[in-house]
Amino acid sequence: MTQATKPLKAGTATFTSLSCKECGAEYEAKAIHVCEYCFGPLEVSYDYDAIRRHVTRESIQSGPNSIWRYKSFLPVATDTPIDVGTGMTPLVRSNRLARRLGLKKLYIKNDAVNMPTLSFKDRVVSVALTRAQELGFTTVSCASTGNLANSTAAIAAYAGLDCCVFIPADLEAGKILGTLIYSPTLMAVQGNYDQVNRLCSEVANTYGWGFVNINLRPYYSEGSKTLGYEVAEQLGWELPDHIVAPLASGSLFTKIYKGFQEFIKVGLVADKHVRFSGAQADGCSPIAEAFREERDFIKPVKPNTIAKSIAIGNPADGVYAVDIARKTNGNIESVSDREIIEGMQLLAETEGIFTETAGGTTVAVLKKLVEAGKIDPEESTVIYITGNGLKTQEAVQGYVGEPLTIEAKLDSFERALERSRTLERLDWQQVLV
Amino acid sequence: MTQATKPLKAGTATFTSLSCKECGAEYEAKAIHVCEYCFGPLEVSYDYDAIRRHVTRESIQSGPNSIWRYKSFLPVATDTPIDVGTGMTPLVRSNRLARRLGLKKLYIKNDAVNMPTLSFKDRVVSVALTRAQELGFTTVSCASTGNLANSTAAIAAYAGLDCCVFIPADLEAGKILGTLIYSPTLMAVQGNYDQVNRLCSEVANTYGWGFVNINLRPYYSEGSKTLGYEVAEQLGWELPDHIVAPLASGSLFTKIYKGFQEFIKVGLVADKHVRFSGAQADGCSPIAEAFREERDFIKPVKPNTIAKSIAIGNPADGVYAVDIARKTNGNIESVSDREIIEGMQLLAETEGIFTETAGGTTVAVLKKLVEAGKIDPEESTVIYITGNGLKTQEAVQGYVGEPLTIEAKLDSFERALERSRTLERLDWQQVLV
Ligand SMILES: [Zn+2]
Ligand SMILES: [Zn+2]
Repeated sequence: MTQATKPLKAGTATFTSLSCKECGAEYEAKAIHVCEYCFGPLEVSYDYDAIRRHVTRESIQSGPNSIWRYKSFLPVATDTPIDVGTGMTPLVRSNRLARRLGLKKLYIKNDAVNMPTLSFKDRVVSVALTRAQELGFTTVSCASTGNLANSTAAIAAYAGLDCCVFIPADLEAGKILGTLIYSPTLMAVQGNYDQVNRLCSEVANTYGWGFVNINLRPYYSEGSKTLGYEVAEQLGWELPDHIVAPLASGSLFTKIYKGFQEFIKVGLVADKHVRFSGAQADGCSPIAEAFREERDFIKPVKPNTIAKSIAIGNPADGVYAVDIARKTNGNIESVSDREIIEGMQLLAETEGIFTETAGGTTVAVLKKLVEAGKIDPEESTVIYITGNGLKTQEAVQGYVGEPLTIEAKLDSFERALERSRTLERLDWQQVLV
Repeated sequence: MTQATKPLKAGTATFTSLSCKECGAEYEAKAIHVCEYCFGPLEVSYDYDAIRRHVTRESIQSGPNSIWRYKSFLPVATDTPIDVGTGMTPLVRSNRLARRLGLKKLYIKNDAVNMPTLSFKDRVVSVALTRAQELGFTTVSCASTGNLANSTAAIAAYAGLDCCVFIPADLEAGKILGTLIYSPTLMAVQGNYDQVNRLCSEVANTYGWGFVNINLRPYYSEGSKTLGYEVAEQLGWELPDHIVAPLASGSLFTKIYKGFQEFIKVGLVADKHVRFSGAQADGCSPIAEAFREERDFIKPVKPNTIAKSIAIGNPADGVYAVDIARKTNGNIESVSDREIIEGMQLLAETEGIFTETAGGTTVAVLKKLVEAGKIDPEESTVIYITGNGLKTQEAVQGYVGEPLTIEAKLDSFERALERSRTLERLDWQQVLV
């Protein structure tokens, strides 16, 4: 498995072409994303024999402490990718949340502290913008529900690329400010994400810009595979039994799966059947509905949920996500906005991790699956926390209570403390009644 | 320097006692922080011979990817400290900011992505709560300008400790919410930080609680030394020529200095004269004023600045900070609120890092020192970015512009793009006039 190998020569690419996920047609690795014949999505192909010959656990471990330690599995040729320290976020062994849910081996992959903008999107954007530079783009763009806007604007700023970002106009203040601070051109579109996305497709056809999640999507989406690689490496080169991840377009889910499969294929980990479960919000659950109704197609919906970062009504990779959940014996569940907030609070109270609504969705679905007996307490289970709670403060503002306001005097403090203890006792009595 | 050594036995402490920084009186390592004889601050003493015998670069590098790789230099005995992945944040070699300022070797130590709550306070709290557990405390507390509240509440939640946090009532919304989410008891005191701090001293004398920055302060403050150790290790076991750090109480500054001195003392790095420069906001600059006026004492001030996290009007370690800046041939400067915001924008635009007001202060002071010829372009210079901009959104809300609102139609986009380009040209013309 880790026999002597020669490192790859500098600047050698291991990816070979793009191929259609539906009909298999092959294309040169340019800035295209749709098959000319069948309109299927294009995906990057690799020379896995070359990877197997050159990549070992040791060669990965001696690489940078970022996603670029897996460069041989990513669709870029350069030896100087845009490395802002993205990736290698903590895989936390859960103590208190695990106990609360009755799980024995629960792990939290915490991209709420990913570099530089505190969401997993930094992974896909680092890859997309590196590839954009290779393909000669000087302006980069994206259609975003917020996290992607933050990430594209920040990493473009670091790399010195011009940047134009499109968001739905009703986004959370933290996500708007967290984009503007990097001084991109920011377009707030009156409409939902699916409308933003359609407009961007038109713009991409007209302007010579690199849209990370449109014409660069085949490269971009490969960045999510690193969430699979890192978990495998951080578990000591072993795959977990079960993963739970949020579903927006479905891409993240399919790419974690691809990442695990690739590590098996090149011999970095032993083969294993990993169960894949997905999480959606009730207010935008087209993938969960297709799973429940055992459909092979997605019925688009109009999103209406506080979990805006995963509110994609017409998810591009939804059918692939359903397929993976089904064939791995996983599940796809959805939860209410109330449960999402409770999920955020539960994770914060037990693990000290403040995640955004998408993370709350994942925790709430985890809880739901455990309660329904759909996760075995003995299974090693990894949940993916994909973004930071400071970006979606509006979602929980009214639900976490208020500070106790006091004067700067000991007796004022003591009265407040007494009141808060009485409140706690009352709460308990209510529970006990 | 790295000769063969034996690792320390499990559970062995390398710290020996507390001693008074002023009169040298020694005390047992309990929860005390003030000298009984002279009222001077107490500081932790170590057995550096033991550390020298047992610690090597290799033993550190084989430790965890967190501050706990430096456990031998920290005042805890346990082998199972509270490790939430705090520390080992990126040291970024600056490209675009360095060019903008005309510096050759600029590095950014980025604690804006520190675990778990995105500020350097996670370092000091991890150490303080670990020591609190060793000393038998079950309730922990703090007086905070915000970041410390976030960190204490989060890490107490992770560790399962009861937690009561005190903040000034006028704090930024993000810092209040980012504390409440972990469900501590949160007291909002009508007054400024110095008044909060005085109240907490009274409470600490009355209740058997571990106040991280009062009765546990000698242990707590040692956590900041890791910002020195990490920079030395990340520079390849070498010290920089110059550092610039924000000054609040002055403790961070003195502990980075102590960290460098300790690494020299035990032979982990070569001796070197490092220049120490400090950054304050004009609206709360008692340390900068003492430095300017060549005083040996601090005149307390009433804070009035957007940089709330460093707005300490009566800084406990101010005189020590002045002393270090003076003897290392550094400087202490202050900047206006406007310059602080520009500093935040400059860092975001050039490096893709969104820092809070304290970080903006540091960047603005860096710029001011460079322009005044007080930093040599050839010096290797490290700036310390200590917190994340998502927590102080109010500070920049009115200054970063607004998105361009458009309809979901190509022509609406094109008109907006044309307008934004005209604006840019106008901006340039104004600059050129
Ligand atoms: Zn096709
Ligand atoms: Zn004394």
